[in-house]
Amino acid sequence: MRELGIIGIGQTPVGEQWNKSLRELAGEAVFAALEDAGRESADGIFVGNMLSGTLNSQENLGALISDWIGLRGIEAFKTEAACGSGAAALRMAIWAVGSGEMDSAIAMGVEKMTEKKGSDTTAALATAADADYEVAMGLSFVAINALVMQRYMHEYHWKHADFAPFSINAHANAIHNPYARLQEAIDEKDYTQARMIADPINLLDASPIGDGAAAVVVIPLREAGGTSDQKPPIQIIASASATDRLAVHSRRDPLWLEASYRSARKAYSQAGIAPSEVDLFELHDAFSIMSALSLEATGFAERGQAPRLGLDGEISFQGHIPIATRGGLKARGHPVGATGIYQIVELVQQLRGQAGPTQVKDARIGMAQNIGGSGATIFTHILRKYPS
Amino acid sequence: MRELGIIGIGQTPVGEQWNKSLRELAGEAVFAALEDAGRESADGIFVGNMLSGTLNSQENLGALISDWIGLRGIEAFKTEAACGSGAAALRMAIWAVGSGEMDSAIAMGVEKMTEKKGSDTTAALATAADADYEVAMGLSFVAINALVMQRYMHEYHWKHADFAPFSINAHANAIHNPYARLQEAIDEKDYTQARMIADPINLLDASPIGDGAAAVVVIPLREAGGTSDQKPPIQIIASASATDRLAVHSRRDPLWLEASYRSARKAYSQAGIAPSEVDLFELHDAFSIMSALSLEATGFAERGQAPRLGLDGEISFQGHIPIATRGGLKARGHPVGATGIYQIVELVQQLRGQAGPTQVKDARIGMAQNIGGSGATIFTHILRKYPS
Repeated sequence: MRELGIIGIGQTPVGEQWNKSLRELAGEAVFAALEDAGRESADGIFVGNMLSGTLNSQENLGALISDWIGLRGIEAFKTEAACGSGAAALRMAIWAVGSGEMDSAIAMGVEKMTEKKGSDTTAALATAADADYEVAMGLSFVAINALVMQRYMHEYHWKHADFAPFSINAHANAIHNPYARLQEAIDEKDYTQARMIADPINLLDASPIGDGAAAVVVIPLREAGGTSDQKPPIQIIASASATDRLAVHSRRDPLWLEASYRSARKAYSQAGIAPSEVDLFELHDAFSIMSALSLEATGFAERGQAPRLGLDGEISFQGHIPIATRGGLKARGHPVGATGIYQIVELVQQLRGQAGPTQVKDARIGMAQNIGGSGATIFTHILRKYPS
Repeated sequence: MRELGIIGIGQTPVGEQWNKSLRELAGEAVFAALEDAGRESADGIFVGNMLSGTLNSQENLGALISDWIGLRGIEAFKTEAACGSGAAALRMAIWAVGSGEMDSAIAMGVEKMTEKKGSDTTAALATAADADYEVAMGLSFVAINALVMQRYMHEYHWKHADFAPFSINAHANAIHNPYARLQEAIDEKDYTQARMIADPINLLDASPIGDGAAAVVVIPLREAGGTSDQKPPIQIIASASATDRLAVHSRRDPLWLEASYRSARKAYSQAGIAPSEVDLFELHDAFSIMSALSLEATGFAERGQAPRLGLDGEISFQGHIPIATRGGLKARGHPVGATGIYQIVELVQQLRGQAGPTQVKDARIGMAQNIGGSGATIFTHILRKYPS
């Protein structure tokens, strides 16, 4: 495969965007990415999306979006891997351009989640879990994560408040991200006193849903050289994914994200780096427990010890392993099928030095991990500032 | 990209399979394909599916299926391009193996459509069209195709009975396909007297929905050499896709499938062949009007003249351009997200000489075209018996 670079990024604010349709949101992100790349078109568009069929009565998003943005005729279709759909779309763009079949591709994610009533959205999100063996037993998606968090706290002797730094850090960083849904600080008291959703997960353990879209432009690295100093091309040095058993109860160990471990290990090997060389990690903090499990499976913390990183201040943008530097899922918001591309957009901002007050100093290598289902389908991407 | 071959095929019967879940259907097709290939696993699975979120309350099919069939951990996710989802999954497998990232991949399609009541399925199928500008006006998916057929008949002076050969041919061929849903012959009287659905489309112009799954195993061609004479490897000599405006009323000419033309032209160029070298064409006969439009856009008939091919007997398995040789969507059935892979399975059967009484004599090159929406997203694949 050819070496690849990202030369353009675009995103919409995450929130309740009742005045914009699905296609308008998508278009806004794609136009921004193309403008950022200094281009007018691309050879293909790959759309990450999970819920447009159920929540927007619209499938065939490839044609919908390529038509809307005026790139009629180009190849375009949708990929779905639950909340990992965005990263799956990036995999497509990487293969399409990496294989030489396309000279440029847009990987994007879009989700419009606030059109229907909450119970419909909750039911739609549950399609990420096992319909026959989890959801049919009455479990919602948050309930599955609550069982995992409960078990983790029991097994490793953490109390709920020990997870507070994950949410506090995300909110602190989101204040400086104009695209974030929750641009407000929280403290430990807010966290511990938040309304309970599914014990022990409370409102401030959970990421908010939202409407939003994000897009990146992928081209061969050797053609990305001419970009300005303000926008160095960002090289994609690893792209890998793996699956696990869909239902959490089927796994040998419900507290170990095997697919995170496998995809990260593959990614480190492709990139030729060790975890210690990663300058920031945009992880999938849909729930605070998922931050902990991801940090462990990717090698940043020992089994059962990830909350320690938060308590020691290591996850801030000035810490050893910065996470959620633009707010993460927790505070930027989690428009599910778009999240994986938001993560990539944010990594590019950091590696370009465009992350403002939460800029990670001398950021050179960034990693993103996007998760579909409760650890079932996991994508790991590693980007590097080029020339590094 | 590396040259690729298909070494295994599998399928389930199409029908109302109330005793099998979505994952069981998928597993049945994948196990059959792996057994046919003489293999036990693959490096990845790409799943074409359109409606599992709305009709089966299940997304994340990559993890669902890889888990169920025991290939836990491998990369797997879903692609969606409405009724073209199956071919989109094949595109994924082609890129994954062609780029060298995987050494083998399963492309499959699965759809379970008969669980809910008919009106739910009709609403779900309408998500292939433009929700805001077609469906919101009261158009169902069949109604859109009915308007196109009406216009075609008016413009080119055909009467409804002139389309009869498309359906009669499909049914005649399906009698010999044990996987087909409608294994019964029809005659012109049956066709003209069938119950009206949306004038001029009657019951025998429309393909039946169904539950079903199909799968193929893709590997590098050079590793496919060892297979027996009974199963020559089948080379993928072209794979291309294109989009058109989503809403039919937005197109310059509603009677011209621009995306069919573009993807076919690209495919002929990749394969280095002319349409006249195609020995059979598995086209997307979701409605008889779509057979006509596909034959014209791919170069087998002049504009407005495709019904002539049927009336002259050229579309039978003994004709100049055999179509629907195993029953097509019309009589094999149309489990939407799986259809694109059924077409590939049937092409492989023909090129291997395994097509029984409807075997196309000396079939060497076969083409398949899979359509998502009313012509919005179109995939063309060309296969060749190897060594040819």
